Amino acid sequence: MSVTAPLGFRAAGIAAGIKAAGARDLALVVNDGPSRAAAGVFTANRVKAAPVLWSAQVLAGGRVRAVVLNSGGANACTGPVGFQDTHATAEKVAAVLEDSAGEIAVCSTGLIGERLPIDTLLDGVDIAASQLSRDGGLAAADAIRTTDTVSKISFKRGDGGYMVGGMAKGAGMLAPALATMLCVITTDAELTSEQLDAVLRKATRVTFDRLDSDGCMSTNDTVLLLASGASGVVPDLAEFEKKITEVCADLARQLLVDAEGASKAIAIEVIGAASEQDAVTVGRAVSRSNLLKCAIHGEDPNWGRVLSAVGTTDAVFEADRLNVAINGVWICRGGAAGDDRSKVDLRPRDVTITVDLSAGPHSATIHTTDLTAAYVHENSAYSS
Amino acid sequence: MSVTAPLGFRAAGIAAGIKAAGARDLALVVNDGPSRAAAGVFTANRVKAAPVLWSAQVLAGGRVRAVVLNSGGANACTGPVGFQDTHATAEKVAAVLEDSAGEIAVCSTGLIGERLPIDTLLDGVDIAASQLSRDGGLAAADAIRTTDTVSKISFKRGDGGYMVGGMAKGAGMLAPALATMLCVITTDAELTSEQLDAVLRKATRVTFDRLDSDGCMSTNDTVLLLASGASGVVPDLAEFEKKITEVCADLARQLLVDAEGASKAIAIEVIGAASEQDAVTVGRAVSRSNLLKCAIHGEDPNWGRVLSAVGTTDAVFEADRLNVAINGVWICRGGAAGDDRSKVDLRPRDVTITVDLSAGPHSATIHTTDLTAAYVHENSAYSS
Repeated sequence: MSVTAPLGFRAAGIAAGIKAAGARDLALVVNDGPSRAAAGVFTANRVKAAPVLWSAQVLAGGRVRAVVLNSGGANACTGPVGFQDTHATAEKVAAVLEDSAGEIAVCSTGLIGERLPIDTLLDGVDIAASQLSRDGGLAAADAIRTTDTVSKISFKRGDGGYMVGGMAKGAGMLAPALATMLCVITTDAELTSEQLDAVLRKATRVTFDRLDSDGCMSTNDTVLLLASGASGVVPDLAEFEKKITEVCADLARQLLVDAEGASKAIAIEVIGAASEQDAVTVGRAVSRSNLLKCAIHGEDPNWGRVLSAVGTTDAVFEADRLNVAINGVWICRGGAAGDDRSKVDLRPRDVTITVDLSAGPHSATIHTTDLTAAYVHENSAYSS
Repeated sequence: MSVTAPLGFRAAGIAAGIKAAGARDLALVVNDGPSRAAAGVFTANRVKAAPVLWSAQVLAGGRVRAVVLNSGGANACTGPVGFQDTHATAEKVAAVLEDSAGEIAVCSTGLIGERLPIDTLLDGVDIAASQLSRDGGLAAADAIRTTDTVSKISFKRGDGGYMVGGMAKGAGMLAPALATMLCVITTDAELTSEQLDAVLRKATRVTFDRLDSDGCMSTNDTVLLLASGASGVVPDLAEFEKKITEVCADLARQLLVDAEGASKAIAIEVIGAASEQDAVTVGRAVSRSNLLKCAIHGEDPNWGRVLSAVGTTDAVFEADRLNVAINGVWICRGGAAGDDRSKVDLRPRDVTITVDLSAGPHSATIHTTDLTAAYVHENSAYSS
């Protein structure tokens, strides 16, 4: 299903030979319309990969005919030749579809700093184009994996019968202002590119933007939303936003569960904040404490490490009014020891850390993972 | 030697029974004058331990007769009773010295959130006072260790024959705006508390403040500078600042080398910055990239992870003018691949990563460590 769940889309995922091991490494998603309305959000990193620079230009036009995605190389920090490679890839897809390169988005993921094997990739576009089908969503989702152990897909039916489908990749580097992730979401509902843009920004702000597995921000993050209009359904905008948010949340959850080396999925739930921004800031600071992430890995309810992370922020709070619960046990009350820490059960994979700032009515939740020897191993032994 | 290298100081380090294992856990450093001029800098964390709140008040007066330091408990996040315990400790030291509690600084280090065994600690003060000696510097340095594998001490002779001595502890949580560290520096030079304050702030800003082993900031960081004036030497202020900076740098280096689980000492040298602040910001961002720290652990010269960290900052730079060298090999030039990465030798323990922003004449160096399975183990198995 994935990106081909909605009407009007075909996809393919093939092994072009970009990855040495012969695994799938090239995906193509084509929107056959009648509409080509599209929106995109991109990494906030100021060091942007060539495909991000290219696709941001394409999306500025609000129309996308096709997206070509490769794993096996990020095409980031590759200079002018890297941008030429991205341009050539878009031109090649345009040629096989007999369309305009200005409406072809390009995404890449893999090692930074190395040039893609461009001839191999361009040959792969021919093969992918020849395999495009209404059943190609799963193969496409498989082809964009790097260290992902499983494909990430999602789909939902909207009111009136339109469909939303999506695929994503990303396992490390999950971070604010988007993770290292590529994500393509499709729908056969009928909407303008302005509507898609507004909905996508709202949905990603409360889903992908609130993942922070290791605090690192990628050069390649891209989330695209493509609408074919093939169902003829014009959705209620609020309902559509809800569906897109659900699909984003579902994919975000899948990314987190598959994060490199993680043994715990940790929700940092900040309540009692003076503003939503304060809640996000505090959640982010707590989620980035390596010491806390190690403690949770060791199933140690070390709330002192929570408080010392909260104390590094400029959020509104008084230290002696902070409360912290871990898995529902309020082990810190009024900035000091509360309930017995032995009551905390940290054996389940899912861990919730609640931080009450006692400063207002706002809240936000940031999702992170524990820090494990497996994370260290994966990121010291594998060049990515 | 340590804090008793300068004239006018006595010290002791004893096992009071605060630590379960019977190791030394209480240190006392006494300034017998004739001067008591002193200065201190404290953690920027807004969640401050009771001894930090107390000692900041003491130092506001510019005079310190004695410093009492304990390991085995941070006395942080312990509420009003924790503050009372700190106060009682200062009163006890004042009583045994027949002096004023208002000139007794208190430092604590260990687990956050648990009350100190205060009776044990107060009894220990009596024992420590009975063992005060001109030879006690090493025992004092030993008594403030937590996960430190070795004591950290330093001393220098200044022009005209005055001495500077110091001791420090700290192995994890080394971070900006001071690390988890307690540090006491003594001198027998004659200076005012205002002079000491200005010198200490300048010295810590370019030494301890530029350590960032794991991005975590402690609730207890304290650096104290005490002057007895016993040598009768009034030093040249610039020369004195140089000596204090050297002692701070020496202790900082010892902290970094002993950082929990580290196998590499990494200097992030940022050059070509538009301002010193930009250089510090970029150095800090790079030093906090878990992905990069894992790569260096794996001896992989992964400059893409350097650039993606640089890109998260608001420093002045253009992505296509960034250059990166690892151990002297410029493997990234103009934001793209430069010299052959196979030329980089990452086997030595000391690693230098040079980031050239090509944006100005300013520079700064941040010191960090690699991220290892041993770090994860130490911080998941040990509650600190």
